[in-house]
Amino acid sequence: MSKANAALSVTPFCLEAWSKLRLQAVEQALSDWVTDETPCGLDHGAPADLVAAMRYAVLDGGKRLRPLLVFAAFEAMNLPTASVGHAAAVRAACAVELIHAYSLVHDDLPCMDNDVLRRGKPTVHVQFGEASALLAGDALQALAFELLTPMDGSVPPEMQARLCALLSRAAGSAGMAGGQAIDLASVGQPLTERQLRTMHQLKTGALLQCSVLMGAHCADAPLRAVQALRDYGAAIGLAFQVVDDILDVTADSATLGKTAGKDACNDKPTYVSLLGLDASRHHAQELLAQATAALNDGGLAEAQALHALADMVVNRVN
Amino acid sequence: MSKANAALSVTPFCLEAWSKLRLQAVEQALSDWVTDETPCGLDHGAPADLVAAMRYAVLDGGKRLRPLLVFAAFEAMNLPTASVGHAAAVRAACAVELIHAYSLVHDDLPCMDNDVLRRGKPTVHVQFGEASALLAGDALQALAFELLTPMDGSVPPEMQARLCALLSRAAGSAGMAGGQAIDLASVGQPLTERQLRTMHQLKTGALLQCSVLMGAHCADAPLRAVQALRDYGAAIGLAFQVVDDILDVTADSATLGKTAGKDACNDKPTYVSLLGLDASRHHAQELLAQATAALNDGGLAEAQALHALADMVVNRVN
Repeated sequence: MSKANAALSVTPFCLEAWSKLRLQAVEQALSDWVTDETPCGLDHGAPADLVAAMRYAVLDGGKRLRPLLVFAAFEAMNLPTASVGHAAAVRAACAVELIHAYSLVHDDLPCMDNDVLRRGKPTVHVQFGEASALLAGDALQALAFELLTPMDGSVPPEMQARLCALLSRAAGSAGMAGGQAIDLASVGQPLTERQLRTMHQLKTGALLQCSVLMGAHCADAPLRAVQALRDYGAAIGLAFQVVDDILDVTADSATLGKTAGKDACNDKPTYVSLLGLDASRHHAQELLAQATAALNDGGLAEAQALHALADMVVNRVN
Repeated sequence: MSKANAALSVTPFCLEAWSKLRLQAVEQALSDWVTDETPCGLDHGAPADLVAAMRYAVLDGGKRLRPLLVFAAFEAMNLPTASVGHAAAVRAACAVELIHAYSLVHDDLPCMDNDVLRRGKPTVHVQFGEASALLAGDALQALAFELLTPMDGSVPPEMQARLCALLSRAAGSAGMAGGQAIDLASVGQPLTERQLRTMHQLKTGALLQCSVLMGAHCADAPLRAVQALRDYGAAIGLAFQVVDDILDVTADSATLGKTAGKDACNDKPTYVSLLGLDASRHHAQELLAQATAALNDGGLAEAQALHALADMVVNRVN
């Protein structure tokens, strides 16, 4: 190991500092792109009240875990930050966050979870009405694919196509939307651990896994790294949901920024109801170990942001 | 003109026969692609009940105007039907229909138009419940972008990227979803003709125009033809809505396959309420003339299917 590398490896990695810069870039880009400015070549921009609901749903809130995963995977490939891939990674980071944001807006609607509080604020339908929330969610999903397909030559078409392919599959009926449908159908139903895992792999895991795969694709990652990130994404995707289930019973609404205790109240099957609290905590730590092993086995042992994000997913308090 | 061409030009064009073959291909492709089969490389397919709602929303119904416009524009460029572009056109035709279908599912929901009848059948939320209808719509939008981004090499990545760019912009906040938001906000409001036109350009026009542009792009159409199709699409997009407004007051529910008289009942601004019935009919014919002129001026005078579809849009009875 060279002296420079030795020095690097003993510098403690600070996830907070690493995240801060990237989150600033994401917040700025989202604010620039979720807008009612008239796009070039069109007669009309989006109506202002629809855009207001979209901005409310997207800006100033959330952990931005998915964008951070895009950047962490992208940077693990050690491309220069001024590359074409970096411009694509910023778009991918924002696009996956738009999909996540739309899913929350629709999930909170009265016909779904009927939730009134999200990130400590009234949910979108409480603030803007149900119909506007529905349309804002629909428009956010479309906007995600707009962001991935800039017509200014800033992202190579092959990369645009692959990013759209990854995101649409992760968001759709064999991904997030499919997981939500299983969730919906399973209220009050006894599920096996295997069924519960399938639901969460689709509902939450698909989009988290997609985040790291999009980041890797923006950096033209080699196959070995892509496979490692696939396994890493699957492990933290499931871990995220196990921890969500734990927090639903152990944290209060103020800490969560959303209504605590909803799952038990709604008679939803969870890891805690299935395995108990202690076994759920143990399972989350096992999944963290799997994520770490995937990185180490795939030649990504030095990818500090990916390691730190996995740790954050499992050991978070909200 | 050669003898062969002269013979062609006197053969009367039969839209019904032309449409029949293309509709069979679209129905088959939609049935194959809206499925719960596990996609290659994934552990799980989509849940069966979600797919059932998606299929109900998409199959066996509708005029399929948008897919027919894709094919008509594609064929106007005279590429061989076995070309790569043709495979892309089939995907584009299905993708735009999925976007249209999802918009109807969401539009029919109680928080929007609260409609119980569509294409002569109970609407999706009546049949499957509101939450399933919401998710089926969401999943259909994602599936549209899946169809445009096959990972099997069957469509060149540049074409995939451009098709996603066109469709996402037509579906989103400065397109269809934006038009629906204006529609929502305008109930009971007096609109000028200009405001009404803007609403319809976004709500209906954007996706119809996108259909012909996607078809043209699949055939690598020259700029002059693209511009002609842009004008043609704008004219028939608006005409479609003018005629919809006319039929809402002149046709009965059985003919329409949906509830007639809804607009007046909901106090929605329409061309008929703004201009009166006669002037609306006259305006529809003007728009047909504009569409025809756009084709003729753009070197597409021989594009019989495009001419016939414009005529059908304006002179339809349901």
